[in-house]
Amino acid sequence: MKKLMCVPNVSEGRDAAKVEQLADVIRQDPSVKLVDLSSDGDHNRSVYSYLGDPEAVLEATKRLADLVFELVDMSTHTGSHPRMGAIDVVPFILVGSTTTEEAVEIARRFGRYVGDKGIPVYYYEDAATSSQRASLVDVRKGEYEGLAAKLEDPAWAPDEGPAVFNPATGSVQVAARFPLVAFNVNLRTDDLEIATRIAKAVRNKDGGYRYVRGMGLALEGTGMVQVSMNLTNYEGTPIPRVLETIRSEAARHGVAVAGAELVGPVPIRALEEVVKQYLQVHDFSVGQIIEMNM
Amino acid sequence: MKKLMCVPNVSEGRDAAKVEQLADVIRQDPSVKLVDLSSDGDHNRSVYSYLGDPEAVLEATKRLADLVFELVDMSTHTGSHPRMGAIDVVPFILVGSTTTEEAVEIARRFGRYVGDKGIPVYYYEDAATSSQRASLVDVRKGEYEGLAAKLEDPAWAPDEGPAVFNPATGSVQVAARFPLVAFNVNLRTDDLEIATRIAKAVRNKDGGYRYVRGMGLALEGTGMVQVSMNLTNYEGTPIPRVLETIRSEAARHGVAVAGAELVGPVPIRALEEVVKQYLQVHDFSVGQIIEMNM
Repeated sequence: MKKLMCVPNVSEGRDAAKVEQLADVIRQDPSVKLVDLSSDGDHNRSVYSYLGDPEAVLEATKRLADLVFELVDMSTHTGSHPRMGAIDVVPFILVGSTTTEEAVEIARRFGRYVGDKGIPVYYYEDAATSSQRASLVDVRKGEYEGLAAKLEDPAWAPDEGPAVFNPATGSVQVAARFPLVAFNVNLRTDDLEIATRIAKAVRNKDGGYRYVRGMGLALEGTGMVQVSMNLTNYEGTPIPRVLETIRSEAARHGVAVAGAELVGPVPIRALEEVVKQYLQVHDFSVGQIIEMNM
Repeated sequence: MKKLMCVPNVSEGRDAAKVEQLADVIRQDPSVKLVDLSSDGDHNRSVYSYLGDPEAVLEATKRLADLVFELVDMSTHTGSHPRMGAIDVVPFILVGSTTTEEAVEIARRFGRYVGDKGIPVYYYEDAATSSQRASLVDVRKGEYEGLAAKLEDPAWAPDEGPAVFNPATGSVQVAARFPLVAFNVNLRTDDLEIATRIAKAVRNKDGGYRYVRGMGLALEGTGMVQVSMNLTNYEGTPIPRVLETIRSEAARHGVAVAGAELVGPVPIRALEEVVKQYLQVHDFSVGQIIEMNM
């Protein structure tokens, strides 16, 4: 079952009528399921999460972009969230058996659609055209306010569309990526230093697992600390391997794991590894799950 | 998401055209998904597995029964499988958030539909009207050949329909039940006695967990033995609890768990417990799985 999820961030979070109008163009195709919509007035931003067949998700995203360019004018936009454009980021996220290649192809087709309207597009994550553009943090440096200057820099020529600043739309950042798994592990200690040391042990930045980002946090009022993580590729770095490393590092300090959290959506394939690891069912397949046949 | 699976056993496994005709009445409603069909000439029996919304599954099962009564004549039926009737057993199996009560209601509506045609019906498992009728083994005792005598016994008055032997149809056995989980654990020893002792330790019959049936088996040619089990209610007796008990009992004999098998379909809720137990994600919900939102 090949599916895509798309989670565009739109720079409009105050005008409820517009936010709803934008949701409606996604819902227009009943095969595309809008699973979440969150708007924030301070950030002046709305995040739409929808999923379906890759082609249907692509078409819904084109409809969304068309309406955003009609309704949102970046030249009058204010808000606390970093942003480059009216439809600021458009990550296409692999679901089910969709491959990275397939998601990149959809991302590129969307990018060309936007570029052909005369709007600059940058690709990032797995859709990036160079490693310098892989991270959104780098691509978004300077933000909307610095975009005119950035477009004049040959090193930042857009991946699609002209190197011309469009004040009403800004630029559109388009990605393909694995779903993030937000995984937090709570430790039976109030010593933040231990959580920080363990976060460093497992995260890529300091020598840990390639697909782990993480930090130590105090959980106020609980007497516990947390290793708070994002797993950016649960195939390369499976959840159980990270947890067992944390258990082992915590034991070194005489600290036990009090519990863990999976925050927000989790792909079923990330859980397949849990069954294989702990039940030792070496040839388990998600196709065996009754609900997967529906 | 409320769904039902239905797995009727039909007493026809030799005439491929009839078997296919029966499959077609299930497929007639495209919302009902025929996930498996297996026919056996020796047993002279076909097993249809399909799932969908409870009402749609009920209607498909009525259509199936109508056609079975037209095509299958028990008075000329031979085959090695124990059976009571033309449509021999009709278990309605809970899937997703369907409750036992809801599945029993559908089972009873189907039973009345058959009874109203003048065909005797027995309910078993969660649909049973008394504990004497809970087990299919008891209900099916005497089989088709003993059914005429059984119907004359007031203790075996049918739950629906007249206490009258219908030679062409026999009786129909209707159940509501939890999905079975077939779970096998392989042990790194060739000592069958150890597998047998462990099977006794975990199975209900000998003092083990209420919802476990099981036995020890030799795995020929592998040098290993297996604790082969059916978990009849994965909520009451979760998979990880059974596995951990087996690990502990095996350790007592100095034997390690080599691996495990989940055979055939597994409900997602049975796996929820695996995540809670081993990842210690105490408030994990299957609703978080991206694919569950599709």
